[in-house]
Amino acid sequence: MQILDDTQGMSLALELAAKGMYTTSPNPRVGCVIVRGGEVIGMGHTQPAGQAHAEIMALRDAEARGHDVRGATAYVTLEPCNHHGRTPPCSDALVRAGLGRVVAAVTDPNPLVAGQGLAKIQAAGIAVSSGVLADAAWEMNIGFFSRMQRGRPWVRLKTAASLDGMTALHSGESQWITGPEARADGHAWRARACAILTGIGTVKSDDPQLNVRAVDTPRQPRRIVVDSRLEIDMGARVLEGGGTWIVAAVRDPAKEAALQAAGHEVIHLPNASGKVDLPALMRELGRREINELHVEAGLKLNGSMVREGCVDELLLYIAPCLIGDAQGMFALAPLDRLDAKKTLKFHEVKQVGEDLRILARFTQQQE
Amino acid sequence: MQILDDTQGMSLALELAAKGMYTTSPNPRVGCVIVRGGEVIGMGHTQPAGQAHAEIMALRDAEARGHDVRGATAYVTLEPCNHHGRTPPCSDALVRAGLGRVVAAVTDPNPLVAGQGLAKIQAAGIAVSSGVLADAAWEMNIGFFSRMQRGRPWVRLKTAASLDGMTALHSGESQWITGPEARADGHAWRARACAILTGIGTVKSDDPQLNVRAVDTPRQPRRIVVDSRLEIDMGARVLEGGGTWIVAAVRDPAKEAALQAAGHEVIHLPNASGKVDLPALMRELGRREINELHVEAGLKLNGSMVREGCVDELLLYIAPCLIGDAQGMFALAPLDRLDAKKTLKFHEVKQVGEDLRILARFTQQQE
Repeated sequence: MQILDDTQGMSLALELAAKGMYTTSPNPRVGCVIVRGGEVIGMGHTQPAGQAHAEIMALRDAEARGHDVRGATAYVTLEPCNHHGRTPPCSDALVRAGLGRVVAAVTDPNPLVAGQGLAKIQAAGIAVSSGVLADAAWEMNIGFFSRMQRGRPWVRLKTAASLDGMTALHSGESQWITGPEARADGHAWRARACAILTGIGTVKSDDPQLNVRAVDTPRQPRRIVVDSRLEIDMGARVLEGGGTWIVAAVRDPAKEAALQAAGHEVIHLPNASGKVDLPALMRELGRREINELHVEAGLKLNGSMVREGCVDELLLYIAPCLIGDAQGMFALAPLDRLDAKKTLKFHEVKQVGEDLRILARFTQQQE
Repeated sequence: MQILDDTQGMSLALELAAKGMYTTSPNPRVGCVIVRGGEVIGMGHTQPAGQAHAEIMALRDAEARGHDVRGATAYVTLEPCNHHGRTPPCSDALVRAGLGRVVAAVTDPNPLVAGQGLAKIQAAGIAVSSGVLADAAWEMNIGFFSRMQRGRPWVRLKTAASLDGMTALHSGESQWITGPEARADGHAWRARACAILTGIGTVKSDDPQLNVRAVDTPRQPRRIVVDSRLEIDMGARVLEGGGTWIVAAVRDPAKEAALQAAGHEVIHLPNASGKVDLPALMRELGRREINELHVEAGLKLNGSMVREGCVDELLLYIAPCLIGDAQGMFALAPLDRLDAKKTLKFHEVKQVGEDLRILARFTQQQE
């Protein structure tokens, strides 16, 4: 394909970045395209953590294809890194390669380093610019940016309900409210998250596996259970295979020893009411390099997460049916006045199979 | 403009039909375009009942503009009528005018007369065809078609709720859940309906005017109140100006006399439980030539209408907010099994201002 302008170049780089959707975390998903005379001479995207970044992959690709990159333009969906992390700085590699121009979609979201990668490249006599398709690049790494800027993950709460807002009968029956397309779509959102969080209520009632099944992914997200009183049954399916984080408000040495012996970790974060301190948990997950957190819980934990300002976005599947008196999506106490309501903004609405998928973002600054 | 094919001709005819959106009832909204050699030589749309139909208006328009319609093609959004109603048959007028071809979007929905208008035109040696943009033409007159085919109106139930399905606080506070654009849009749907129906509960709690204000219309829809026990206060705003239909399940000679003296009508339709027989009311409204019925009521009447199979379509405005424990949209008893839910199909989803507008249609055959 011919690249005729910066938007086309960056658009292709974003397509490449998306190839890392399920694999780059905790690193951001980045794509890089090297173009000379309208011809694409190198392409790359970020490999799993510890392996090469997108820029390096694109330079290697150009070399493998026998192209000389000197004087060429590199489109990269995030400002090239300028620090020694798990790999050496990409800015140095781009300078050494003798590129003519580097275009970034967005600058580094970390305020302490923003602009330094591009500045070093510019200081070496290479033309730089940024801001091309910035919104799309931001969405691609919304969780990474949240962690860099706020020290906590981007929290996406998924739920599925009828048109009258019901998720399950009082009996608990909830299977098949939404159709197979919506359920598969929900698994794609699980797959892109670093972790999936649920509550002990859901573990007890539904015994979910809390993993990705409907989508092919090489990496399963971390599983997290909010279990204030450490009530989890050692046979719960969410514990299969080890590696689950159990977040508790109490100590129970015997239960904790059993969980640790099975390869799980217990995190203690009690609040003053003897429940799990959810805002503190969000900060802890930020420290643990969780970029996007996917919440699938029952109405109680959903309500607590919303009430305590821990949710950034609702991922809501609405099935075209009416259920009537049943279980709602969020346990939220009655308001005294309507202006105390939690306000959001519709971000995207799309039909998925027979159902509707709504992405809505809270407008108040979250915790 | 040049008309290059049948789709363009019919599309223009549908635009003309829409000009009668608020005025033609109980007649259908019909548009007619007369084209010769790609040139539009006559246009018309149905006038208020008792006045000229679209075909006559288009023939007059061509004549007034000095055009000879002989041999021309007429695009009409509904098969020309073939009977003497309030006006003479349009099929005769088209034959007399010497048109070369008549294209209809849909045939007459009345099974007893379907096809007869086109058959008479064809018998006179004029080419005929039908089915061009049939779906859009059907939507334009969905209420008229419902009345012709099922003997009852097309019933559209409007409600506005938060993302968690709540319409009002337990205190009754419900103003401003949705934004001004959604409220104006709701008035446009009121305006196109032949009648607006509510319940005595809403009259008591909100005292609505139940008229069209945010949209300019020459005709106010009929107001209907379901008031089983004739509890309505004579000072209720829904009674201002007379002409309201009060549907009761009891007799109360004094109250009825007062209502009649103020220009209202009381309709008795009790069912075996001493409530209003809603399916019978739908049939009665069909007899009274109500094409589209717009329902704006509280959760009890909404629930009864849905439960008794009297609703064809939900017009649901969803505001991007969470309210928590409050009043829902429909009072529907708990289900024993999920497969007893009422199923719908999303017909159209659109953002209106900051809110979402969902049109969803029930999939079961309604009463």
